[in-house]
Amino acid sequence: MNYELIDSYPFYVEPFHVDFTGRIFLGVLGNHLLNAAGDHSQRRGWGIGALNETRHTWVLSRLSIEMMEMPRQYEHCEVRTWVESVMKLFTNRNFSILNAEGKPLGYARSVWAMIDLETRKPCDLLTLYDGDILNYVVPEEEGFCPIEGHSRFRFREPQLVRTIDTYYSDVDINGHINSIKYIEHILDLFPRQRFEQQSIRRFEIAYKAESYLGDKLSFYEQIIDDNETDIEVRKNESDVVCQAKVCWR
Amino acid sequence: MNYELIDSYPFYVEPFHVDFTGRIFLGVLGNHLLNAAGDHSQRRGWGIGALNETRHTWVLSRLSIEMMEMPRQYEHCEVRTWVESVMKLFTNRNFSILNAEGKPLGYARSVWAMIDLETRKPCDLLTLYDGDILNYVVPEEEGFCPIEGHSRFRFREPQLVRTIDTYYSDVDINGHINSIKYIEHILDLFPRQRFEQQSIRRFEIAYKAESYLGDKLSFYEQIIDDNETDIEVRKNESDVVCQAKVCWR
Repeated sequence: MNYELIDSYPFYVEPFHVDFTGRIFLGVLGNHLLNAAGDHSQRRGWGIGALNETRHTWVLSRLSIEMMEMPRQYEHCEVRTWVESVMKLFTNRNFSILNAEGKPLGYARSVWAMIDLETRKPCDLLTLYDGDILNYVVPEEEGFCPIEGHSRFRFREPQLVRTIDTYYSDVDINGHINSIKYIEHILDLFPRQRFEQQSIRRFEIAYKAESYLGDKLSFYEQIIDDNETDIEVRKNESDVVCQAKVCWR
Repeated sequence: MNYELIDSYPFYVEPFHVDFTGRIFLGVLGNHLLNAAGDHSQRRGWGIGALNETRHTWVLSRLSIEMMEMPRQYEHCEVRTWVESVMKLFTNRNFSILNAEGKPLGYARSVWAMIDLETRKPCDLLTLYDGDILNYVVPEEEGFCPIEGHSRFRFREPQLVRTIDTYYSDVDINGHINSIKYIEHILDLFPRQRFEQQSIRRFEIAYKAESYLGDKLSFYEQIIDDNETDIEVRKNESDVVCQAKVCWR
């Protein structure tokens, strides 16, 4: 492992962080991934705090998680994370999730953009801070992430399956519905039996626009096959907020 | 501090664990308290795992939290917890919440019963395991918890303010709506302005009965005065599940 470029972020699977099958909630796991990403950036001078000084911030665009096995209650695990590549407007960050014996339980891929806080426009990552971020790219042979890239979503005639109001608990420090809460609300669309009989093999989400406290979120479903469902989330019955894919094992 | 009887449980205030004011969500803080309680019991042979062998488990009956100041994003804090007293059917466990400088930010009180997993009836704590729990009681002068005891609730004609469905994310490993989720749903009853203009000084909750995935929860409100509201939660429009008091500063 390249200890200079790949960080390890330990986590413990707390009792209230597991579902009724005793496995960690995917949203909680997603939160650990985002914390690991935040720490990794911060240690290299690219954290939210440092960026704030030049009025920039990271925006999560895509997150795809694929799990062979979900961590169980009371397990000690770790997230490893590194920068896979940097393009002009996006950077790819990968993750692996390991148990206490170092056995990989799953992997994840994410895409991030950097925006200017004043204009809300994306910045050129290759020139920002003199391209410093390129120093943190991990060579492909060292950053092993054997899962597919992000899907392209195509919604034809998805069916409205639920509309919810958003409240205090849904929003983050910026007043936005937080990235993890979308994951929770999307998984809440599935009936109990689904979780009893199957487990999530892969979950993808593409964040398209922000929504805010008080927005109504509508969930549209498009069934791909028995084990795959796409979900589109729209706010106030118009703008697309995010799109997700849930694949069952 | 009595290091033999009082444990310290460190926690860090993660980005997704703060509300739009930048302070920790009360539900997240409650989760840290329950984790601290679980660890403290476990270290003394009274954890869920050990109890399970004799088919017993802890049931949380009351939780009252009073905060002078809510921890902020990125703060390192700690929960201290100890057993205040033991009666035949209940034990009182107290908590203090401190910042990194050791300054108390708040306190909490809780009441727990031990039940037999077969009969679901409470057990006699004074005789269970030969009264071993009495060895862990902290003398009053060492366990400082300067907040009021739990209130007695009296609901006269509370008004129905919201009914919600419960989903996958609401339930714990036992299939019950989890204790923390009630706190979130109760605080979600309050409008944005309330959190912008005031902060929660004290929060109390009394757990009365379990509810399950798929139950409909109805929230009844009784306004005591400008800064105090009682909430009764009923399932499927009949049985009382829990009662809470929210006091604003």
